[in-house]
Amino acid sequence: MKQNKWTLKEIVAGIEPIDPVWIQRARERTAALLMPARALGRLHQLAEQLCGIRRSLHPSIGRKAFLIMAGDHGIVEEGVSAYPQEVTGEMIKVFLAGGAGINILAGQVGAQLHVVDMGVKADPDLSGLDTGHRFISRKVARGTANFVHGPAMKREQAEEAVSSGFQLATELFDNGVEMLGTGDMGIGNTTPSAAIGAVITGADLEAMVGRGTGIDDRSLERKIEVVRRGIHTTRPDAADGMDVLAKVGGFEIGGIAGCILAGAFHRRPVVIDGFISTAGALIATVLAPAAIDFMLAGHCSEEPGHRLMLQHLGLSPILDLGMRLGEGSGGALAMGIIEAAARIFREMATFEEAGVSGKE
Amino acid sequence: MKQNKWTLKEIVAGIEPIDPVWIQRARERTAALLMPARALGRLHQLAEQLCGIRRSLHPSIGRKAFLIMAGDHGIVEEGVSAYPQEVTGEMIKVFLAGGAGINILAGQVGAQLHVVDMGVKADPDLSGLDTGHRFISRKVARGTANFVHGPAMKREQAEEAVSSGFQLATELFDNGVEMLGTGDMGIGNTTPSAAIGAVITGADLEAMVGRGTGIDDRSLERKIEVVRRGIHTTRPDAADGMDVLAKVGGFEIGGIAGCILAGAFHRRPVVIDGFISTAGALIATVLAPAAIDFMLAGHCSEEPGHRLMLQHLGLSPILDLGMRLGEGSGGALAMGIIEAAARIFREMATFEEAGVSGKE
Repeated sequence: MKQNKWTLKEIVAGIEPIDPVWIQRARERTAALLMPARALGRLHQLAEQLCGIRRSLHPSIGRKAFLIMAGDHGIVEEGVSAYPQEVTGEMIKVFLAGGAGINILAGQVGAQLHVVDMGVKADPDLSGLDTGHRFISRKVARGTANFVHGPAMKREQAEEAVSSGFQLATELFDNGVEMLGTGDMGIGNTTPSAAIGAVITGADLEAMVGRGTGIDDRSLERKIEVVRRGIHTTRPDAADGMDVLAKVGGFEIGGIAGCILAGAFHRRPVVIDGFISTAGALIATVLAPAAIDFMLAGHCSEEPGHRLMLQHLGLSPILDLGMRLGEGSGGALAMGIIEAAARIFREMATFEEAGVSGKE
Repeated sequence: MKQNKWTLKEIVAGIEPIDPVWIQRARERTAALLMPARALGRLHQLAEQLCGIRRSLHPSIGRKAFLIMAGDHGIVEEGVSAYPQEVTGEMIKVFLAGGAGINILAGQVGAQLHVVDMGVKADPDLSGLDTGHRFISRKVARGTANFVHGPAMKREQAEEAVSSGFQLATELFDNGVEMLGTGDMGIGNTTPSAAIGAVITGADLEAMVGRGTGIDDRSLERKIEVVRRGIHTTRPDAADGMDVLAKVGGFEIGGIAGCILAGAFHRRPVVIDGFISTAGALIATVLAPAAIDFMLAGHCSEEPGHRLMLQHLGLSPILDLGMRLGEGSGGALAMGIIEAAARIFREMATFEEAGVSGKE
């Protein structure tokens, strides 16, 4: 059994950028493949990133898994969501029963699902469930506090959330998972995500705050105002990721940040999903800037602020399908593309092997 | 055994648009699914299109296949390609041996490959190949004529190419294939495709003609001039798809047009790939405008004219990954997304089934 308890300081110190030598080696292999130069575009970049992450010219992504982080949010008191808070816990049950979008999409790419209660208000009722998916409780608290009136959580709780995410992802990597996807569930969680996005990217609230699950114009105005007041009250320090998480974040967002740090620390690719997962990615990147090299952006969400977050991170989304479901759905769809990229890199013949004439 | 010999007139008469009643029924089912309204964006449209195509609320895409149409082009005499003409025949061998990009990408989505010699100059040397893929010869001629000096083929040859594609696709559908992808191989075939694109869409040659497999600036200028002279010499009638195909087309492009007509006639979805497949789609759409309802645009190619073709057809590409390989590669990647869309539609729980609280 390897060590599985690092301090945040040790984690950050252990995250190094990808060595460009590996990217260069991978590009040379790509150049030998049986096609016009780099004719599969983005697929080559993805494969070369995998090579850089794994320090290998044989990037394997055999075992894939998703950690679906769930949490509740005190901010829903302000009327920022179209759905009642009970849905968070109800959806955990659906994930475990197999009826949600992520079940189908993760199933199609052969990824396991692990559902984590990072801070759901209720305790999910799991009676009568006979399921192949794993439920894990790492409940930091029964939902965050309403950040309009003060910090969403204590700094120690933020650290606990990130640490839990890191540990859970580390366990999966130790058990042979080669690519991890992040997912989220939490009624109201586009509100803390927008607050994190605004604080870290510096974007205007009007551009960063969106309709989430589908609120009307009046609720959208209220949501913008709520985020504005929350940031004004709690004054998050944009240079301190843990402070931003504690002031305006969510427990599931901290868990996601921890997953991403684990990918970077253990040199495994992490596929981030939409608006909420990318809020977690912003936190992770403030904590450890080199973590960016280990992320793959599954898709660009319909939530308008997501594009701004991705631009801030310098990430180019693999898919752009107008989706806004969360749960890891965009990441799961993108895993099929990433797997294809890795297979092309490993399995395609070279001009030489195939005996095909080259460019004139 | 069903009838498998229709005249073009019968085919065109048998192609009807999707009945909007089926789209409406499908949208009602989507609205009941366990997520915020239409939260999976494009996936819903794809599933609803499948429902419309199949006239069913249980769109199944169990068996998938690709027809890779290969042909040679007299126009390569003009120095429009970066690769020697022998590569067309050499690549057929690679497809059958399993080493090409499409082998890997079609394999990942479980699609069979059928490789068709529609008009390759040489006879492919298939000795020593032990392959799971099927080779079919429907050779119309040993390459087209150089369309700078006159029509690329006779009108009867154009009709033969379309008819062959229709028949081959019909056989696959009769044998249970539920989704067909089109692919192409033919050194020089971005040149006839650009000519078809310019004639049918009316776009400027400078916008429609691109670098194909990677020609330099001087060759690009020559390629534009070659297409300009060819169109001037042969005067294709943009309102007569068979005339455009005969004047500036290619045998594989005619075969692809036939595949698409077969999908529309037999009410099966056809996933078109990049620049060359979409040139075939343009021909098919001039012949039978309602065929458009049965196409799904797999991706947007890096070849700049492709976007103009898709806009002309009113098709929105599923993927945009900077690819320009052809072979059906973009269609194969997109099939994974389309299959996910169908699964979400069929398998996801509804709010009612899951007992989850709805919108407040």
